Amino acid sequence: MKLIPFLKHTAYEMRRWSLLMTTNAGSGHATSSLSAADIMTVLFFYAMRYDPKNFNNSNNDRFILSKGHAAPILYATWKEVGQLTKQDLLSYRSFESVLEGHPTLRFPYTEAATGALGIGLSIGAGEALCAKLDTRSYKTFVLMGDSEVSEGSIWEAAQLATYYKLNNIIGIIDCNRLGQSTPTMEALEGDGPERFKKMFDAFGWHSEIVDGHDMQSLVTVLDEARANADRPIMIIARTKKGYGVALMEDKEGYHGKALKPDQEKIALEQLREKFADAASYSDGYQWNPKMPGVGKESKKQIIEMPLSAYKKGEEIPTRKAYGQSLVALGGVCEQVVSLDGEVKNSTYAELFEKAYPDRFYQCFIAEQNMIGMGIGFNRRGFIPFISTFASFFSRAHDQLRMAAIGQASLRLAGSHAGVSIGQDGPSQMGLEDIAMMRGLPESIVLYPCDAVSTYKLVNEMANHHESISYLRTTRMATPIIYDTNESFPVGGCKVLKQSSFDQVLVIGAGVTLFEALKAHEELAKEGTSIAVIDLYSIKPLDVKTIISVARTCKNRIITVEDHYSAGGIGEAVAAAVSTEKIEVYRLAVTHLPRSGKPDELLADAGIDAEAIVKQVHSLRS
Amino acid sequence: MKLIPFLKHTAYEMRRWSLLMTTNAGSGHATSSLSAADIMTVLFFYAMRYDPKNFNNSNNDRFILSKGHAAPILYATWKEVGQLTKQDLLSYRSFESVLEGHPTLRFPYTEAATGALGIGLSIGAGEALCAKLDTRSYKTFVLMGDSEVSEGSIWEAAQLATYYKLNNIIGIIDCNRLGQSTPTMEALEGDGPERFKKMFDAFGWHSEIVDGHDMQSLVTVLDEARANADRPIMIIARTKKGYGVALMEDKEGYHGKALKPDQEKIALEQLREKFADAASYSDGYQWNPKMPGVGKESKKQIIEMPLSAYKKGEEIPTRKAYGQSLVALGGVCEQVVSLDGEVKNSTYAELFEKAYPDRFYQCFIAEQNMIGMGIGFNRRGFIPFISTFASFFSRAHDQLRMAAIGQASLRLAGSHAGVSIGQDGPSQMGLEDIAMMRGLPESIVLYPCDAVSTYKLVNEMANHHESISYLRTTRMATPIIYDTNESFPVGGCKVLKQSSFDQVLVIGAGVTLFEALKAHEELAKEGTSIAVIDLYSIKPLDVKTIISVARTCKNRIITVEDHYSAGGIGEAVAAAVSTEKIEVYRLAVTHLPRSGKPDELLADAGIDAEAIVKQVHSLRS
Repeated sequence: MKLIPFLKHTAYEMRRWSLLMTTNAGSGHATSSLSAADIMTVLFFYAMRYDPKNFNNSNNDRFILSKGHAAPILYATWKEVGQLTKQDLLSYRSFESVLEGHPTLRFPYTEAATGALGIGLSIGAGEALCAKLDTRSYKTFVLMGDSEVSEGSIWEAAQLATYYKLNNIIGIIDCNRLGQSTPTMEALEGDGPERFKKMFDAFGWHSEIVDGHDMQSLVTVLDEARANADRPIMIIARTKKGYGVALMEDKEGYHGKALKPDQEKIALEQLREKFADAASYSDGYQWNPKMPGVGKESKKQIIEMPLSAYKKGEEIPTRKAYGQSLVALGGVCEQVVSLDGEVKNSTYAELFEKAYPDRFYQCFIAEQNMIGMGIGFNRRGFIPFISTFASFFSRAHDQLRMAAIGQASLRLAGSHAGVSIGQDGPSQMGLEDIAMMRGLPESIVLYPCDAVSTYKLVNEMANHHESISYLRTTRMATPIIYDTNESFPVGGCKVLKQSSFDQVLVIGAGVTLFEALKAHEELAKEGTSIAVIDLYSIKPLDVKTIISVARTCKNRIITVEDHYSAGGIGEAVAAAVSTEKIEVYRLAVTHLPRSGKPDELLADAGIDAEAIVKQVHSLRS
Repeated sequence: MKLIPFLKHTAYEMRRWSLLMTTNAGSGHATSSLSAADIMTVLFFYAMRYDPKNFNNSNNDRFILSKGHAAPILYATWKEVGQLTKQDLLSYRSFESVLEGHPTLRFPYTEAATGALGIGLSIGAGEALCAKLDTRSYKTFVLMGDSEVSEGSIWEAAQLATYYKLNNIIGIIDCNRLGQSTPTMEALEGDGPERFKKMFDAFGWHSEIVDGHDMQSLVTVLDEARANADRPIMIIARTKKGYGVALMEDKEGYHGKALKPDQEKIALEQLREKFADAASYSDGYQWNPKMPGVGKESKKQIIEMPLSAYKKGEEIPTRKAYGQSLVALGGVCEQVVSLDGEVKNSTYAELFEKAYPDRFYQCFIAEQNMIGMGIGFNRRGFIPFISTFASFFSRAHDQLRMAAIGQASLRLAGSHAGVSIGQDGPSQMGLEDIAMMRGLPESIVLYPCDAVSTYKLVNEMANHHESISYLRTTRMATPIIYDTNESFPVGGCKVLKQSSFDQVLVIGAGVTLFEALKAHEELAKEGTSIAVIDLYSIKPLDVKTIISVARTCKNRIITVEDHYSAGGIGEAVAAAVSTEKIEVYRLAVTHLPRSGKPDELLADAGIDAEAIVKQVHSLRS
């Protein structure tokens, strides 16, 4: 059996590359790569079934490098697999290179963008669930560091993987003992791997401790993991940070530090000494990748939902319309799945669950993992619609940030936006969600005022595969003001009121649109005319229409929003027209709200019809 | 022994009030209150040592209602304790009342604002750590729901509590089986309490399962918990949601639902029937609160750090200056503690650790818990400075939101802001932190460009007790431009360049301030004059100065920031001057950045000196 010497040689090469890349770049994570070298070798050259020449074969086993800072070892792996050149490796961390400091989707051989820790296991859980839904036999492997096990998101994923009986996910913890600035908690308090084993076992996983630098042990444990799984598996690998290079092996102070060229020379010698056999290997073992069958690929098609049956004047909360729209969408597109954070009766995701129970995933109160799983679903070709209270998406802000970096096209629906939710009080009010979602690169932020526009926008989201899209919905019922055949292109807005005598343009969205319409009516009684725009698309913003209407309104705009002022509609509009000599008056929530009736709270925040009227009156005519 | 009948009667009364309050309000969480009634009774009328008439006695045992939706039972408790009237209770959820839907700090008898789940245990861990630091003997009790145990933050807190050997924290899980829309994962898969016990035991806690409706069992288990703790204790109470009211007991569909008046009538009858003895109790047991000694109170004093010894022209990263400032601050104020998320060698919190090891808390890679613990520290009179990468505060956005609702004056320092960190790539770049922090109600956002201003602003933050303050620091070294005795009041800015011939006002901050200064120099060579402001205080914004300088610059402003445009400096400025007929041109990061050298990335983002010069040239003169 020549496998082991081959693996040892390959790991040696990957270690060597890890040193060369980091020293050449002048920065990077050499020691974190060295501890993982043997694991990576056994995974990619023995355990995993994948087509090295077709990364996107949908039957390939999946691999997620949750400890994204160990990017060098991922890149070195793909060099050894045959897909990268030496020159590619030496471009690591340079501006023109796709081999970034932490993997992003620009690198064609990564399953996910990683670098914020503790997220990979959730992404992997999502992909493992996809395999079940899609009846594919691929396994999902997730390599974590031991420091990141302190992230709560890991334990959310651990609970959910057990709940969903994911016997097709194999986690591996590279237990090298040392974090960036200190040993891990577990290592400080005892035997880290033993403690982790206890913890994962208690969470319903089957876990095994293994010597992470012993090739044969890794081969054996991965064989067993593949064969016997009746539950999720965690392999806890005892490793040493910087393994193989005596000058930094198992030593503090070497995290994320590249060796200087003179140190590198010594390190390469130490490496050669340590792995003398592997270094001089010349055995000519023929690696035959274990190929999976070619998977069927799902094609993206334009999704067209049937016309809705809503009637003008009917009062329906947009959150309910969201649930109804999702059902209609599910009927015309099998790739749509719904993930909900244990508020399905509030977000109305329960309607989808009722219609398509097999495509509904209860994610319980664990929003970070829900977003991570969503990334996994999206990567495997599904169209995940993910819902919870708008406020609770803040729980997963970092995951959303990483989803955006990873170019995942998650569809998000946040209900219970703003003070208009009423009595539940500030902790349940989404008042920073617009700012948060606008801040995700390339994102789309939508905010319908009625059921018809909700329905149409859900259809728009389904067809938007380029980035994260967010739909903000309202708790209270609002009347339907649009015809069912009205169209709502992303990046548009609706000019609802306009005349030749308008004193100002009032821009509302969602619940405040109706306050704007009320104000329009009130003001009309006294002979004052205002234009009103329904800003259903907050990002992208229809700047052209806004400016052209404002021009007919004495170059004055009032924005009114059920959201904090920072990063909200008012700031977006003010910034967009900031070189146009247009005045923008902003009504937004500026102090901490409290419990009360919706109308009391809209009044208290100064975002109701009365406040708009007052603002209009205060303008110099 | 008349204790038990007294407790039963009290619990009966509290259940009754829970029903009356919710039905009167027309909304609220009756069933979640009923499951917890017995636990709350034993805690407040037996187990806890506190002065019912002096909530702020610093030696009181602390109680945190992590399951904040069960607010009615908290309010009912304080009615029975004697601090609230029937009228107070019946004001629950009304606009004028401090008895909000979920507890906020407006209610004088709550330890924390809760309502976003899974945060209470972290706050409690912080308070328990305070007791150790402050050598106080109080115990900290945290009541959780079983649904919220799925939140990863719980498991972060569980790990940290074990690490810090918190034998003075007692968690209680109200295992009523049912969440908002579904049973818990654990209940769906087996015996919830048994599973939780395994999980907490594996995390190093001592846990006990108890009948949560058996007064004597609760008394016994709490006695033991108090006496024998060598580690954190978790009491897992088997309860029934809606316990005592047959029509909704242990039934799905009753979460967060108030009974209608006719249902209430039946419910009150069922309650009286179920607890016949307790209802007709007339035993006159004299409750004698177990009073703690009166604790020494720490007084807030104006903190004045000695002058720094920085020298103009010296190059020091502001992140390093942060660490140095913290050391100086620690020397003049004992209440200052430092919490760091396992990046102390990057944020330079390690300097504080070296100087004051007893007041430094390593929070490992668990940012959510770190913020929660910070809330606890703050509530117990300490001044927590909490540091990690700017980007990783997004991990704790929900906790920060709740901290703001809870009026906690956390001091946050986010390092590695912006694309200027360079090679590590987008996952490590804080590019949404300004937006996130500006969005916290009443928050303060500071962004120094050099070591002197960093030092002064840290002093300002130390004296700011009213809300969250945030300091944004830079990875790379920047030259010191200020005299050590310069003052930097919050809400101010520095006009660094101004002449009678300025074509435009350029506003920079942090790393872009130097780009603005470079542009000033370049443009001067060709005879073009620009004003330059250092916007070290982003919130509050010195609108007055900005406008008055802009007036002398042809009413034109260019903002330049190492941050995404949404909710950043440009939008803040554009919005602030939006009715002033001032043009604002915004240079910000508008696309997903990548790895590269800092100067390459500043250029690529269009936020370097060259981009400013180009923007100035493009202005019509």
